[in-house]
Amino acid sequence: MRVYLAKNLREANRNNAADNRKILREHGVLMVNMMGSPGCGKTSLLEETLKRLSPRYRLAVIEGDLYTTEDAQRLSPWTQKIVQINTEGDCHLEANYIGHLLAQNPHALLDAEILFIENIGNLICPAEFDLGEDIGVTLLSVTEGNDKIRKYPLAFKETQATIITKVDLLEHVDFNLDQATFDLKNLNEQAVIFPLSAKTGEGVDKWCEWLEHQLEKKK
Amino acid sequence: MRVYLAKNLREANRNNAADNRKILREHGVLMVNMMGSPGCGKTSLLEETLKRLSPRYRLAVIEGDLYTTEDAQRLSPWTQKIVQINTEGDCHLEANYIGHLLAQNPHALLDAEILFIENIGNLICPAEFDLGEDIGVTLLSVTEGNDKIRKYPLAFKETQATIITKVDLLEHVDFNLDQATFDLKNLNEQAVIFPLSAKTGEGVDKWCEWLEHQLEKKK
Repeated sequence: MRVYLAKNLREANRNNAADNRKILREHGVLMVNMMGSPGCGKTSLLEETLKRLSPRYRLAVIEGDLYTTEDAQRLSPWTQKIVQINTEGDCHLEANYIGHLLAQNPHALLDAEILFIENIGNLICPAEFDLGEDIGVTLLSVTEGNDKIRKYPLAFKETQATIITKVDLLEHVDFNLDQATFDLKNLNEQAVIFPLSAKTGEGVDKWCEWLEHQLEKKK
Repeated sequence: MRVYLAKNLREANRNNAADNRKILREHGVLMVNMMGSPGCGKTSLLEETLKRLSPRYRLAVIEGDLYTTEDAQRLSPWTQKIVQINTEGDCHLEANYIGHLLAQNPHALLDAEILFIENIGNLICPAEFDLGEDIGVTLLSVTEGNDKIRKYPLAFKETQATIITKVDLLEHVDFNLDQATFDLKNLNEQAVIFPLSAKTGEGVDKWCEWLEHQLEKKK
């Protein structure tokens, strides 16, 4: 019975994701779904990304959290178009939540050129739920260890880009970037990999240029 | 419908957890459920804990992973009583899995004085599923940031001990240990907090002494 229900839920989610994708295409919005463990650096990278891109593009954010609004507050200097969703304990976002937010906040979200979603901090469950995004991004911090690509493969397999964060800490931890790249390419040959540090800024421009290129491709 | 089913699943899990607790009590086994994000240091701390306690106690491990057996292999120098469970994508362990493993592996698991469970790397979902453990432990690495206690409160609220790992990296990251302690005590006044580093060994003895004390209390 449990498998049966999960299948139904997944199918409903797929339909909702397709609806979102259609609406976003009509409005020319590039949606970017950012996933990764708690503390992998999603908000820090978003801060640096918004800082660089907000002078030139209309940006919006859907900020997913269990309960708090701290991350949305951190991003507010860079855009006023932030919509918070609190899941009250649920471990991932689903497409119908996003559809609801798009319908309720069209001026904030559908006028944007890039709409970022910061998913719940979780390397497992969010990857199972397509939100209708154009681009899925998985973040992995060097402090988590390069074995996590092999151990939590789905997110890395399903997303177009993997970002290796906190490379400023590489000298203090046991993280093999070559092995990480090898394992990632094994899972997902097309995946783009961006090693970077939101703290020092190293590599952030390259990631932002790639995002701009994705936006141009969509237009 | 979804809420209804979740409720039923939770209730079934509670019953299964109570069954596990009864069996463990009859055999005098102290079960310790270790939870935390991917890469927070669960396996590294288990290695150091088994190294210190295995000369004096009978120890066993249930090693939870999505797909791989790498962590079980890392622990094998310290005990042969390791049972691997792969969830094939599921983001947490449930009490019925543990009940099944106890029934299938009584010599390995029920002869132990301490049975450690390394849960799936996930700071959210495992905390919702009582496995029948005597002691729940939540690990948080300093590289994840001290805000994670406020942002992912359930695990910290529901467990008896919080371990702050990787304190050797404190000088390189922005982690406020006083704030973490304050937030933890706000959520869970009884919680014990152990700042430690599996890498340097700092603080590990104190954690092991506390575990021994819990075992004495149970006997």
